Amino acid sequence: MAVFVQKFGGTSVGDPERIARCAGRVKQRVDEGHQVVVVVSAMGHSTDDLIELASRVSDRPERRELDMLMATGEQVSVALVAMALQRVGVPAVSLTGGQAGITTDGAFGRARVTRVDRGRLEAELAEGRVPVVCGFQGLSSTGEVTTLGRGGSDTTAVALAATLRVAEQGGCCEIFTDVDGVYTADPRLVPSASKLARISYQEMLELALLGAQVMHPRAVLFGERYGVPIHVRHSQRPDEGTMICRETPEMEEVMVVGAALKQDLGRVSLRRIPNNAGVQGLLFDAVAKAGIMVDDIMQTEFGEIASISFTVDHGDLADVKIAASKVLDRFGTGELAIEIGLAKISVVGTGMKSHVGVAARMFTALGAAGIPIHNITTSEIKISCILGKEHAQRALAISHEVFGLDQVGALQHAAVR
Amino acid sequence: MAVFVQKFGGTSVGDPERIARCAGRVKQRVDEGHQVVVVVSAMGHSTDDLIELASRVSDRPERRELDMLMATGEQVSVALVAMALQRVGVPAVSLTGGQAGITTDGAFGRARVTRVDRGRLEAELAEGRVPVVCGFQGLSSTGEVTTLGRGGSDTTAVALAATLRVAEQGGCCEIFTDVDGVYTADPRLVPSASKLARISYQEMLELALLGAQVMHPRAVLFGERYGVPIHVRHSQRPDEGTMICRETPEMEEVMVVGAALKQDLGRVSLRRIPNNAGVQGLLFDAVAKAGIMVDDIMQTEFGEIASISFTVDHGDLADVKIAASKVLDRFGTGELAIEIGLAKISVVGTGMKSHVGVAARMFTALGAAGIPIHNITTSEIKISCILGKEHAQRALAISHEVFGLDQVGALQHAAVR
Repeated sequence: MAVFVQKFGGTSVGDPERIARCAGRVKQRVDEGHQVVVVVSAMGHSTDDLIELASRVSDRPERRELDMLMATGEQVSVALVAMALQRVGVPAVSLTGGQAGITTDGAFGRARVTRVDRGRLEAELAEGRVPVVCGFQGLSSTGEVTTLGRGGSDTTAVALAATLRVAEQGGCCEIFTDVDGVYTADPRLVPSASKLARISYQEMLELALLGAQVMHPRAVLFGERYGVPIHVRHSQRPDEGTMICRETPEMEEVMVVGAALKQDLGRVSLRRIPNNAGVQGLLFDAVAKAGIMVDDIMQTEFGEIASISFTVDHGDLADVKIAASKVLDRFGTGELAIEIGLAKISVVGTGMKSHVGVAARMFTALGAAGIPIHNITTSEIKISCILGKEHAQRALAISHEVFGLDQVGALQHAAVR
Repeated sequence: MAVFVQKFGGTSVGDPERIARCAGRVKQRVDEGHQVVVVVSAMGHSTDDLIELASRVSDRPERRELDMLMATGEQVSVALVAMALQRVGVPAVSLTGGQAGITTDGAFGRARVTRVDRGRLEAELAEGRVPVVCGFQGLSSTGEVTTLGRGGSDTTAVALAATLRVAEQGGCCEIFTDVDGVYTADPRLVPSASKLARISYQEMLELALLGAQVMHPRAVLFGERYGVPIHVRHSQRPDEGTMICRETPEMEEVMVVGAALKQDLGRVSLRRIPNNAGVQGLLFDAVAKAGIMVDDIMQTEFGEIASISFTVDHGDLADVKIAASKVLDRFGTGELAIEIGLAKISVVGTGMKSHVGVAARMFTALGAAGIPIHNITTSEIKISCILGKEHAQRALAISHEVFGLDQVGALQHAAVR
């Protein structure tokens, strides 16, 4: 007997019929003789409806009150899912985040899980009941209702799985969602993309940061830290999905597991600025204070003179221009250039660590296709190229093809068998 | 400085505009220099929507899960009302029933308040904040979310007012609703009905049991037990409303303060049954087991033979007939008669205790109008007559007139001034 944590997202519990299907999924595991803890998100658009309601009451609602409001969304879901389980003969009990033992800090709207007390969960499991837990929420140490912010329900599921040590008994954290797994690229952009049988935490993290919507980076990080195997599966289809797990030696045999495209980027370049200690701090402090998320940063230097470029979302260019200009004024030297219409193509793979020539293969393929590369950034397991958006989709297809990504899924599945 | 508990019902917080008006009401009291605790119900029809949703998931949802679900309705309201208060510059903090210190027993769906810990409320008040508390709900001693059932929000308000000893400092429990007070009769049935300035707990209790929707009997009982003055007021109009309070000597000067009509009654009569100890127990045990609420019971005896009549709602007659027939079979003697098309007219007043001839005056007036009375039941402060429904509305008007009820409101208001 293993313990499985099954998480169902908002779409999966969007109406009574879907809730019944989720209950069926849970029952299946229970009938196999396993113990199950269920984590659910708020139904479909109910979160949006609550935000809309709040906006009609106040233009600047306090975060604490918003959390109190938002937390009701998951509470509705858990009650209904528990009812649906009871209806098909599975004893179940709904629990708020607090009742499930999830303690957070007091940062309303983006609280962090500080402690999970598994006493109640274990007691319910011991009684043969399926605890159905509100995702996305907890209780602060002073008893206030908090929400975990984006990716919160995934984080709840992985945190509970970690606390219950599901891996030790052969269980895992199953994330049921509206896609059937992690693909080598977005299938809407690359029709030949293949579904991965498994992916390492680090690879998933990079892909998630590059915009793969399957899992929130935060939950992946949590999974990595506590070694929780995370199984991404489609909530309505029986497919096998993708397992996110620790890196294994076989994983390194595959150079690249995924390619991603980030659109609508702009580039800000500060050229001929002083190459002093602290210039970067000044610049990015000013950008951060303007509330702007920076994508990639690239710096080059020539003696006492440096150039810094960074990419941001298109929509932030106007604000970033103001912030960067002020910094240049303080430097008393240098020039500012803003470019629009850029995109970023990235390839990700643990195998890069043990294979040479991965970057070269990508650059050569893009070069052969006549696609100019404006900037390059790399991490240990990722290569990103900034290029003109008119080349973006073709560059993605080329990168996907050159690393044989359309075959990776099939190869992995074959290896698993 | 006094403490006021202000309760707003579902209609009063039905949409953002109404919520803003409630906030205005609260601010008024705060601006007068008083401390305020707010209790709110779920918005408008949200409770019905939740029940509908549950019925689509399961035809027999467990009560515990229903409570988990229903409790979200009030949680949405408190968050929104707190936001609305903050928006108009009144510091406020929303609290679930549990956070507000309300402990109940574990009877889901009809839990009883067993303890109120006023620590959190007093702490918030001391900080200058208005606690906005979920009505209708609490937390059991094992941490389960419970709901109090019908009249629950009124009960919450009165319980908090009792705990905070509002009366000692000149405060009270203000129930804001969609009527502007307690009337001597339902103004839709008796256009000349007058609004009462004050009414005793016992009188209000009788009227509530007779169907006056203003306050739930349970909350009135709670108010009486702890001596909490309850002020019933219209949520959108500035009228003075009606104060429900302890009986005073002046109150006894008025014989009758209200007249009520209960429609669609049927009467079940068991005639010529054995006049033994225990027959009543057998009969009403069988009726209760069939899930039927009995209205009034009347019994007469002639030596070894007795007759028992009781009234029930029209809709229950078929069920009650089956249950009563079985009991007759056990007796082996007696006959069963069922009558339909009955109504009950009642008059209520503390003054009956010190005035003779109240009943006679009512019977005489009905008799003079040619209205036959089928049954009579009385309590210390109430007289009820069962009669044909074709006479009901006229009998109500006659009873109202014979005790001068159209003048009672004005007399009371004059006395208050």
